[in-house]
Amino acid sequence: MDKLLFTPGPLTTSLTVKEAMLYDYGSRDDLFIHLIKDIRYTLLSLGNVSKEKGYEAVIMQGSGTFGVESVISSAIPKTGNLLIVINGAYGERIAKIASIHKIPFTSLVFAEDEIPDLEKTEQLLMSGNFTHMVIVHCETTTGILNPIESFGVLSKKYGVHYIVDSMSAFGAIPVEVDSCNIDFLISSSNKCIEGVPGFSFILAKKETLISCKGLADTLVLDLFAQWQGLETDGQFRFTPPIHSLLAFKQALKELADEGGVEGRAIRYHANFTMLKEGMAKLGFTEYLSEEKQAYIITTYYYPENIAFDFKIFYQELNQRGYVIYPGKLSKASCFRIGNIGRIFTDDVLNLLNAIKEVKTEMGF
Amino acid sequence: MDKLLFTPGPLTTSLTVKEAMLYDYGSRDDLFIHLIKDIRYTLLSLGNVSKEKGYEAVIMQGSGTFGVESVISSAIPKTGNLLIVINGAYGERIAKIASIHKIPFTSLVFAEDEIPDLEKTEQLLMSGNFTHMVIVHCETTTGILNPIESFGVLSKKYGVHYIVDSMSAFGAIPVEVDSCNIDFLISSSNKCIEGVPGFSFILAKKETLISCKGLADTLVLDLFAQWQGLETDGQFRFTPPIHSLLAFKQALKELADEGGVEGRAIRYHANFTMLKEGMAKLGFTEYLSEEKQAYIITTYYYPENIAFDFKIFYQELNQRGYVIYPGKLSKASCFRIGNIGRIFTDDVLNLLNAIKEVKTEMGF
Repeated sequence: MDKLLFTPGPLTTSLTVKEAMLYDYGSRDDLFIHLIKDIRYTLLSLGNVSKEKGYEAVIMQGSGTFGVESVISSAIPKTGNLLIVINGAYGERIAKIASIHKIPFTSLVFAEDEIPDLEKTEQLLMSGNFTHMVIVHCETTTGILNPIESFGVLSKKYGVHYIVDSMSAFGAIPVEVDSCNIDFLISSSNKCIEGVPGFSFILAKKETLISCKGLADTLVLDLFAQWQGLETDGQFRFTPPIHSLLAFKQALKELADEGGVEGRAIRYHANFTMLKEGMAKLGFTEYLSEEKQAYIITTYYYPENIAFDFKIFYQELNQRGYVIYPGKLSKASCFRIGNIGRIFTDDVLNLLNAIKEVKTEMGF
Repeated sequence: MDKLLFTPGPLTTSLTVKEAMLYDYGSRDDLFIHLIKDIRYTLLSLGNVSKEKGYEAVIMQGSGTFGVESVISSAIPKTGNLLIVINGAYGERIAKIASIHKIPFTSLVFAEDEIPDLEKTEQLLMSGNFTHMVIVHCETTTGILNPIESFGVLSKKYGVHYIVDSMSAFGAIPVEVDSCNIDFLISSSNKCIEGVPGFSFILAKKETLISCKGLADTLVLDLFAQWQGLETDGQFRFTPPIHSLLAFKQALKELADEGGVEGRAIRYHANFTMLKEGMAKLGFTEYLSEEKQAYIITTYYYPENIAFDFKIFYQELNQRGYVIYPGKLSKASCFRIGNIGRIFTDDVLNLLNAIKEVKTEMGF
């Protein structure tokens, strides 16, 4: 039996999602072209927008970061100016991308346990000559939930294009792309929609997307060209990850069966609550205070006990069939436990029992 | 039942290759890290090189073109000078990539039915100040086989780095990366190794790869950084296409079971010969003369008969469970039939019978 993945992704997926990959399709086959169209249509609906409302969904091969780099390098002209609101490693990664592509940018950096401050952001937007702003929705570095709605209000007030990296939130945390004033939202196949890895996707305001024509400085990551390809003949410009897309179609069906984003949120929230309470009982301390925390992934301090060794802790849980995740913090020794993917409260309970067992064995 | 794919890819794969995807692995799991290492090791052996001989295998998310753009944009400095030997659409695509990345280049263009001329190439290499040369191994545009060995001799003589796009040949046409003097060879998961799509891979001369440090102008396509990531902790820098890699591992096993590259070449050659003879009997004319043709994909002229309509021809074959491929030539009306993937002579025979049936029905 597969180990259960309590990570930020790739995640545990249902057997039926994986079984959807037991077929080979030609990439130009009408059936497959129809499937791509269906997926793009459904993705828009998950963001509460539609083609009719002036939004478009674009699928980009590769991991989530391929999607982020596609947007940053395709949407912001070299004469633009990007404000990057950062409170974790994924915000920093966007700064790295902007730097590589020689896009003028300013990083507004907050502590990893701090919600980015709206006033400080507004001061910068007032004084700077910004054309674009980007923020991460749920920073997987810590599990913190950033208020993308409030930043959306600022983006509207100051007339900057608004980019949201919603990698580990989309599909489980409801988002109104339209009323949040989002121009580009990025997520990936193997997060809360519970597909397998292979591609990222972008929900884009059509008007803004059209203005990207000719801005990209790569062939494969050109967001506008990728969209145009999908619109012209319904096909990918370059060989699509057929099997990942077949799995994703099934994953979208299972998301709908669960009651859509709201239904999934209920399950993830139940997982999160059980994990939170159980870990507290076992004496673990959360890195974030309660009100800042999303219900996606939780960061825990290493216990202050010399008997604790993360490598052994990880390995012991791994041998029992539970995969947790190391920390990614710059300043604190922590580990992370995700509660997304095809995981239920019973699985969380089993994990907690395993942690209890390992804790006793290790003697911390 | 799935339709059989007589295309240049994605291809028909074995059920066992697809069944290898029925599992979820954590991307940091030791088992998965070991699997990546295994795959990289085996890929080198398929090119008749090894780490010990000074070669490295790098895996890059996305389709084959992601791999090509990764190499072109990571290996050639903006002060370099690239000679692109072109006789088809995939050579032209490389010119497009070089142009986008502002890499100085010269296109040496030959007709699509012409083997690139060595003397003309040598004249250019003598007169120009080239640092790199690139050629496509089997141009999928027509199915022509380019003599990468002879161009390798030139690359050595004139001291230029040598890049080979072996997308649709690697795994079925034997290649000696070392004695061909190849610095970078690019192929992908869903071609002759018969995996599913999801990634490309690059065999690289380590010495040349090391010299790429800092040259890339993207984050995700940075070949050197991707290699460094794989070497440092055995992991991908960004979420790998786990399931495609699981399938690929099984595909490599099945390639070995078939007798490796040589064994696969025998089957593909048998498929090709049967197709060639059968199509000739049915009155179809090949675009390429016999001696130029590889045994991967064959281009056929549209029959000169007003009763022939490619769309109907394609659709009728499709309904019978056989997917063929449109042409991609700039000057001639053609279609293509591939004979690679999990396809045997019996399948080719069935395709030929279906073509005969459709031909009679359509009355051409």
